Amino acid sequence: MVGTGPGDKKQLTFAAATAIDRAGVIIGYRTYLDLIPDLISGKEVIASTMMKEVDRCREALELAGEKRVALVCGGDPGIYAMAGLVYELAAGMNAPPDIEIVPGIAAVNSCAARLGAPLMHDFAAISLSDLLTPWELIEKRLNATAGADFVIAIYNPRSKKRDWQLPGAIKIIAGYRRPETPVGIVTAATRENEKVILTTLAGFDCEQVGMQSTVIVGNSTTRVIDGRMVTPRGYGNKYGI
Amino acid sequence: MVGTGPGDKKQLTFAAATAIDRAGVIIGYRTYLDLIPDLISGKEVIASTMMKEVDRCREALELAGEKRVALVCGGDPGIYAMAGLVYELAAGMNAPPDIEIVPGIAAVNSCAARLGAPLMHDFAAISLSDLLTPWELIEKRLNATAGADFVIAIYNPRSKKRDWQLPGAIKIIAGYRRPETPVGIVTAATRENEKVILTTLAGFDCEQVGMQSTVIVGNSTTRVIDGRMVTPRGYGNKYGI
Repeated sequence: MVGTGPGDKKQLTFAAATAIDRAGVIIGYRTYLDLIPDLISGKEVIASTMMKEVDRCREALELAGEKRVALVCGGDPGIYAMAGLVYELAAGMNAPPDIEIVPGIAAVNSCAARLGAPLMHDFAAISLSDLLTPWELIEKRLNATAGADFVIAIYNPRSKKRDWQLPGAIKIIAGYRRPETPVGIVTAATRENEKVILTTLAGFDCEQVGMQSTVIVGNSTTRVIDGRMVTPRGYGNKYGI
Repeated sequence: MVGTGPGDKKQLTFAAATAIDRAGVIIGYRTYLDLIPDLISGKEVIASTMMKEVDRCREALELAGEKRVALVCGGDPGIYAMAGLVYELAAGMNAPPDIEIVPGIAAVNSCAARLGAPLMHDFAAISLSDLLTPWELIEKRLNATAGADFVIAIYNPRSKKRDWQLPGAIKIIAGYRRPETPVGIVTAATRENEKVILTTLAGFDCEQVGMQSTVIVGNSTTRVIDGRMVTPRGYGNKYGI
């Protein structure tokens, strides 16, 4: 399982490129494969469409009995992605293949880098997708982490069909944080259509958030320095700066 | 600011290697620089010792007025690292240089990959270092995230001088989770002295944790599949597996 990072092929690790290069067959979601044309040209490629994760993982595991397979994911296969599904499916096989996870630059890493330095202190990653998780649990997690002053990285904030979760989440967090708390919205980090917006809880506009966005909400100490979102490392001020 | 990942140089991104290659001077903590000898050989290098972060960042910023500087960090400069400090220090300069963050594979990415797939669902990263954060706030965060069923990645779990925080943290989490909850301890991920331990909350032994370790505690659904720590993606079981 190979993570290809946020999109720009320069964000792949050498280990990821090598794993793809050594593979006899490359399997992945077409959108991610289209971002790395040089790495897969001339190779056997099985490109699939969205929402076929289980089929894709099953196919990769079956083929891995015959040849070396690279199952390609955007971001990091180990963060909100397919690594777990692969292990779960492999457990049901008579002779499961060896599985290796090659980590990648996840959305949380790349979006933080584009915003400045919002993740210098404790943070939580929360997905707003309630397809597989009850909304009550998501609400509980938003309340718990907003109340304990975590920086919060929101995954899957909004899609065409899921439009009420994000305003709900922002409202919960705003119950604990100042209206001027910095919030960053990063869409399609490192890709051609990248968009970086720095706003506040009070100024937050859900319309600026899409399927390819990650939202990072600052903690009580996060501030904007020369257009960058920065969370200081300490609650004390040991360094006198 | 360039992140070099967990240690093995194959875990650098192409963007990170290019940034180091293009730099006129490379500044970093000696331990991290020693892991990438090929990339820095023949270059002007300023290697510093631990606990000199402020001096290192200040020097990098000053030199950046004259030449292209790569300030090198292990892991990801944007996660519990020096990116914030650099922005804070730059804000005090008359003519601050342009700053770019080149993200790297952070401990949370690399340790998850070595353990299996523990971060398939919402997670929190919490540092146990109380040098810059009051212990009461750390306790509050442990309670909040353990109570809301987050997977918890513990940074800076233990050092020679800080030995009581980790048992304290494990005790708090154990108040909310089953004794058999899987816990992973990854030390020096991808380096020669890498050590991966899979245990449980009840079986947890603080002596197995050191300065180079990250600890990942599963949520209520995390289980061990063929020796790997796996958190299922959904609380429902949509896929019937």
